[in-house]
Amino acid sequence: MQLRNRFTERFGIRHPIVLAPMDYVADWRLASAVADAGGLGILGGGYGDRAWLREQFAHDPSKRLGVGFITWSMAQQPGLLEMVVEQRPANVFLSFSDPAPHAPAVVAAGLPLICQVHDVEQARRAIDVGACAIAAQGGEGGGHGTGTRSTFTLVPEIADLLRDHAPEVMLLAAGGVADGRGLAAALALGADGVVVGTRFWAASEAAIAKSAQARALQASGDDTLRQSAFDVVRERSWPSGYTGRVLRNAFTDHWHGDEAGLRADLRAQRRVFDAAVEDEDYRLANVIVGESIGLVDTVDGAAAIIDDMVASASSILAGGSSVSSSAGTSFASPGR
Amino acid sequence: MQLRNRFTERFGIRHPIVLAPMDYVADWRLASAVADAGGLGILGGGYGDRAWLREQFAHDPSKRLGVGFITWSMAQQPGLLEMVVEQRPANVFLSFSDPAPHAPAVVAAGLPLICQVHDVEQARRAIDVGACAIAAQGGEGGGHGTGTRSTFTLVPEIADLLRDHAPEVMLLAAGGVADGRGLAAALALGADGVVVGTRFWAASEAAIAKSAQARALQASGDDTLRQSAFDVVRERSWPSGYTGRVLRNAFTDHWHGDEAGLRADLRAQRRVFDAAVEDEDYRLANVIVGESIGLVDTVDGAAAIIDDMVASASSILAGGSSVSSSAGTSFASPGR
Repeated sequence: MQLRNRFTERFGIRHPIVLAPMDYVADWRLASAVADAGGLGILGGGYGDRAWLREQFAHDPSKRLGVGFITWSMAQQPGLLEMVVEQRPANVFLSFSDPAPHAPAVVAAGLPLICQVHDVEQARRAIDVGACAIAAQGGEGGGHGTGTRSTFTLVPEIADLLRDHAPEVMLLAAGGVADGRGLAAALALGADGVVVGTRFWAASEAAIAKSAQARALQASGDDTLRQSAFDVVRERSWPSGYTGRVLRNAFTDHWHGDEAGLRADLRAQRRVFDAAVEDEDYRLANVIVGESIGLVDTVDGAAAIIDDMVASASSILAGGSSVSSSAGTSFASPGR
Repeated sequence: MQLRNRFTERFGIRHPIVLAPMDYVADWRLASAVADAGGLGILGGGYGDRAWLREQFAHDPSKRLGVGFITWSMAQQPGLLEMVVEQRPANVFLSFSDPAPHAPAVVAAGLPLICQVHDVEQARRAIDVGACAIAAQGGEGGGHGTGTRSTFTLVPEIADLLRDHAPEVMLLAAGGVADGRGLAAALALGADGVVVGTRFWAASEAAIAKSAQARALQASGDDTLRQSAFDVVRERSWPSGYTGRVLRNAFTDHWHGDEAGLRADLRAQRRVFDAAVEDEDYRLANVIVGESIGLVDTVDGAAAIIDDMVASASSILAGGSSVSSSAGTSFASPGR
């Protein structure tokens, strides 16, 4: 079974499912597993660690994987983007802060540029800098974003913008997509494909502690929140306006809303936090997942995840016996 | 054309589209227009004004309209719910704070109870008190809510809860649904129907100033935000945790985040605000719409809105030529 469209054609894949470039979690093993299963594998370059990147690229000799960055952090490292472009990854995915200073090098090299955006204004900017595709991320997603818009409204509003002003630019829905219902809904809303983070974070190939996965599988989306306390304790200088969605725990219960208090005791709290990370003590350490963790009950291989998403979405969108709109014919909610 | 399912059967309507009981905006004219067009019309009882309610009921002799309340406010008025139940509206829709003290009177009278919830925990409570349907509202919606969850993940997570624990309880998606793409997406996510606020707020039959509609039509979803400043100036004592999504304007630019300053100058600021409402000056007065206002470009009649939603959603979900999942067959994003 395949779900083909202009996005799969353009990127040479079988299904319009993209691995979110979760920093360090999306390493060559997970990205390769997604690519093997017909999706688009993107490495999670994150804050930008050259040694890590060189290792990943070495495991992708056929250059079928893309690479994503936290743009403001990558920008602080002279020459990093140039090194990456020389490696000719399958695409470059830029998130968080203005892509304009970096887009020309990517576009000039002929690499597809995907820009992740959090509102319509950022989408206009992405069009202007030459993005091949725009990933519209709602605040339900795990990790960072602005949290000001949600996937359900952001996708169709940007779809309308692209229809009117840049029909050649493709649109991906990011944030909240964890199963075939989400894939079908994203396509219904006007997306050409989806960016999947949390569901792949819980893949057996993900570069994340099994104990973190086990803890997260018990959670509802209600157990997540957007916060900055973990950025404070990790001394990550995120620009104003960005927060990160994580699993609520004793650390967020204590420090969320008291970031000033955390800063005042930073050296001691950083030691406590670092020890918790080392010990895989997730009462204090951060577990970065989105609201859709409430839809994830098992750790599965990336191929099984993708196969299930495609089969379920196809069934929903193909309608068939489950949906009818003719007079007098009843339908059941296809997503049940 | 009809979109029938168990929800339309249970409520005796033609399409699974519910008018959000927006306080005072959803009066008998708008609710009747929605009902005439095959949807479920629910009066916006809001904070609970007996004279207003009596007038609305007088215009619905056939008792086909439901009525919704801001539960904590209704609860402060002894005898109000009893008066309403005696009127035998088509259903009772309770939002915001625990429905438990009020559910027995509704259920005992044989009236369908719809409970609006903002997270999974509230959905469990709604099942326990005997709700016939649960409206799962994401933070993208206009007006009040907790803003902690989004429609895209809340709907499927509650769908799974109901599947496992209360399959007879139906599920509505609320927040962000403004067109056929949203209706199709909501059904794909597992809902039995949708609650539509913002799109009907911009209906020609809505009890709202034309000048407010005209201003809102220019807005993007980016121009909305969740805030409490308008509750402070209106002296509405919302319980902790609730905020309201409105159009950003000079009032929110000034007071959002400085609620303490607003309280300190409340008498003077209330005079200024009341005058702005009187003058329809929406630089200062509140315009209550959700993120989906960015999808609304015209004021139309409720019947035209519903017909368009149904035709578009049917086309998306019926698949047909636009979607195929068989090997080698391509599909276009049905929502475009």
